[in-house]
Amino acid sequence: MPHLSRRAQHVPPSPIRKLVPYAEEAKRRGKKVYHINIGQPDIETPEVMLQAYRNLDLKIIPYGHSAGLWEYREELVKYYARHDIQITSEEIVVTNGGSEAIIFAMMAIMDPGDEIIIPEPFYTNYNGFAVEAGVRIVPVTSKVEDGFKLPPIEEFRKKITSRTRVIMICNPNNPTGYVYTAEELEALRKLVLEKDLFLLSDEVYREFVYDGAKHLSVLNLEGVEDRVVMLDSISKRYSACGARVGCLVTHNREVLDAALRLGQARLCPATVEQIAAAAAVHTPDSYFETVIEEYKRRRDVVFEELGKIPGVVAHKPQGAFYTMVRLPVKDADEFAVWLLKDFDLDGETVMLAPANGFYATPGRGKDEVRIAFVLNVPSMKRSMEILRAALEVYPGRV
Amino acid sequence: MPHLSRRAQHVPPSPIRKLVPYAEEAKRRGKKVYHINIGQPDIETPEVMLQAYRNLDLKIIPYGHSAGLWEYREELVKYYARHDIQITSEEIVVTNGGSEAIIFAMMAIMDPGDEIIIPEPFYTNYNGFAVEAGVRIVPVTSKVEDGFKLPPIEEFRKKITSRTRVIMICNPNNPTGYVYTAEELEALRKLVLEKDLFLLSDEVYREFVYDGAKHLSVLNLEGVEDRVVMLDSISKRYSACGARVGCLVTHNREVLDAALRLGQARLCPATVEQIAAAAAVHTPDSYFETVIEEYKRRRDVVFEELGKIPGVVAHKPQGAFYTMVRLPVKDADEFAVWLLKDFDLDGETVMLAPANGFYATPGRGKDEVRIAFVLNVPSMKRSMEILRAALEVYPGRV
Repeated sequence: MPHLSRRAQHVPPSPIRKLVPYAEEAKRRGKKVYHINIGQPDIETPEVMLQAYRNLDLKIIPYGHSAGLWEYREELVKYYARHDIQITSEEIVVTNGGSEAIIFAMMAIMDPGDEIIIPEPFYTNYNGFAVEAGVRIVPVTSKVEDGFKLPPIEEFRKKITSRTRVIMICNPNNPTGYVYTAEELEALRKLVLEKDLFLLSDEVYREFVYDGAKHLSVLNLEGVEDRVVMLDSISKRYSACGARVGCLVTHNREVLDAALRLGQARLCPATVEQIAAAAAVHTPDSYFETVIEEYKRRRDVVFEELGKIPGVVAHKPQGAFYTMVRLPVKDADEFAVWLLKDFDLDGETVMLAPANGFYATPGRGKDEVRIAFVLNVPSMKRSMEILRAALEVYPGRV
Repeated sequence: MPHLSRRAQHVPPSPIRKLVPYAEEAKRRGKKVYHINIGQPDIETPEVMLQAYRNLDLKIIPYGHSAGLWEYREELVKYYARHDIQITSEEIVVTNGGSEAIIFAMMAIMDPGDEIIIPEPFYTNYNGFAVEAGVRIVPVTSKVEDGFKLPPIEEFRKKITSRTRVIMICNPNNPTGYVYTAEELEALRKLVLEKDLFLLSDEVYREFVYDGAKHLSVLNLEGVEDRVVMLDSISKRYSACGARVGCLVTHNREVLDAALRLGQARLCPATVEQIAAAAAVHTPDSYFETVIEEYKRRRDVVFEELGKIPGVVAHKPQGAFYTMVRLPVKDADEFAVWLLKDFDLDGETVMLAPANGFYATPGRGKDEVRIAFVLNVPSMKRSMEILRAALEVYPGRV
């Protein structure tokens, strides 16, 4: 057997990959499993988007522009304007999901061996993208005790080397749900200007903010217009994760040109998906009001129930639909396996995402899990009851 | 302005990028432009595929499996069996177009700095993928005088170094239309075995063979089952270039595992596109009979007309829907610009793809162009008449 690349071996598997066979086995044995481990919401996709597929009026499904269909980009311009983000259709490169937007940004800005500083815990797939781009993620740790706010700017400064090119945030944050404040963004703005860096912001959870919190885009930071790149996706916005439509937005013409050349190599994003995404921009406000209210209720019931579990450390987030929770266990990985393999409450259990895959610092997050608010209120409540009952009898409890 | 990566600057722009403004200007001035420069066919997508979008029966557009929907992979297994290729659904990783399949194969097998040998002229976007993967393309030249058959195996052998990991072919070939023979594949089979290499084959034009030629897949080569990877796409098969559904197929479990991990990082290919692609597998044979006959007629009329142009060197291909043609001009790039800018035949002109972008050896292909049989028979005939008239008066003629 010929050997493979070392690179491919470094792409980490999904943090739940080793749990999947246990979940399958549990279901085979008739156990009900509540999947609060993944970011696949049960919310319906807006009807206006589904109708766009059903009304497809093409005889040929042709290539579109490598930066995305003009008609879709023009709809995006209007969408962003409603969120107080002023851009033109030339400042957008439409991508195969937010994933490709991040890869394009990394490859456009960074050379192999360059460094990108990201607050941890962070979305695990950033690791895979970094391996593909050949760049090194340097973590700065945010902590559950602080509600996962931005670590002190001095911590970033300490990590900057001659190879540092980028600071990246996810805002609102996956996996913590944290929404960065104007002061935090201002501190990052000053730092990238001082240290000649780029600031990347993954803003796919823009809509999902609660309790009056306001999402602020890096695209509105002044004096760093040529240093900010915003990465986006419709996956969560329209509960259309399988549409794979994202985009990269920046005022920097050179980044746009580099992203376009990367885009030309793969020809274009899917044409019909963009037609559907353009229709989705016309989703009525009432849809978002209902969905946001629903996510808020789920979050609230989760925190109400978490409050009843001794030894749990958590901080109610103001955004996205995740929370990172510290559990009174030695090893959250082992606990997640045990939940599927050895535990049930009246024939039911939960699948959690162990947190260590969300940290780059070895050993960090060993006693934390990510909970996703992707099931309805009764299911989220029941999941927390199961978690509580499980922790009462778990042998690996601390 | 902060500087960008050197990498991004190395992704070559599309070979026709600098022609586009001239084509737009020509159209603004009322000139009709026949686009025989691109691989976007005018053939209709099968009705059974279009209906699948229109019948979409989902309330949520969810993530699918990172290696592709099982239902689609099971349809693919049947499709390949009809083409005498025996594989299982576990041996397929569905990708965002053939483009991503090639990137995944390169990244799974090769480390940055490794080398891949490819007969030139080759599909220009291989250059972009190689830059993204950080690998070096080493060309072996095939020649129009030889009908672009596989260069002597000694030429490959001479190019093998300690960094060589892969030989890659495109079969039937884009841009030459050449269909590799059993003897040529056997020579490659022996060489990869002897030199401990992988053999990649881009087989997206499988259906399009003429004059009784038979397409042979690398997946059927014996004794190299763990060394062959086949890259595929539905873009040309169903005239659905904008669906962006491709796949990587191999018997090598380690390559599959690496490709799956790369696939997990970007979550999944588009769900609805795969539903439509699964339906497309049921396209009736009569569709292909009509389409293949149509491409054959286009090819024949192109060669009938090319035969009337003095100084043209071309070889009628047995596959795909392209041909590489040597023209009696000093510089095909300049000629292509001149056609758009300074020439018309009764208000009409043609847009050609200059060939130098298809070669990796500097200076090669300077007097060649690629012609794509993507317009109907009268338009192809007219395009060749325009080309002939143009060459009669072109000042840069040799």
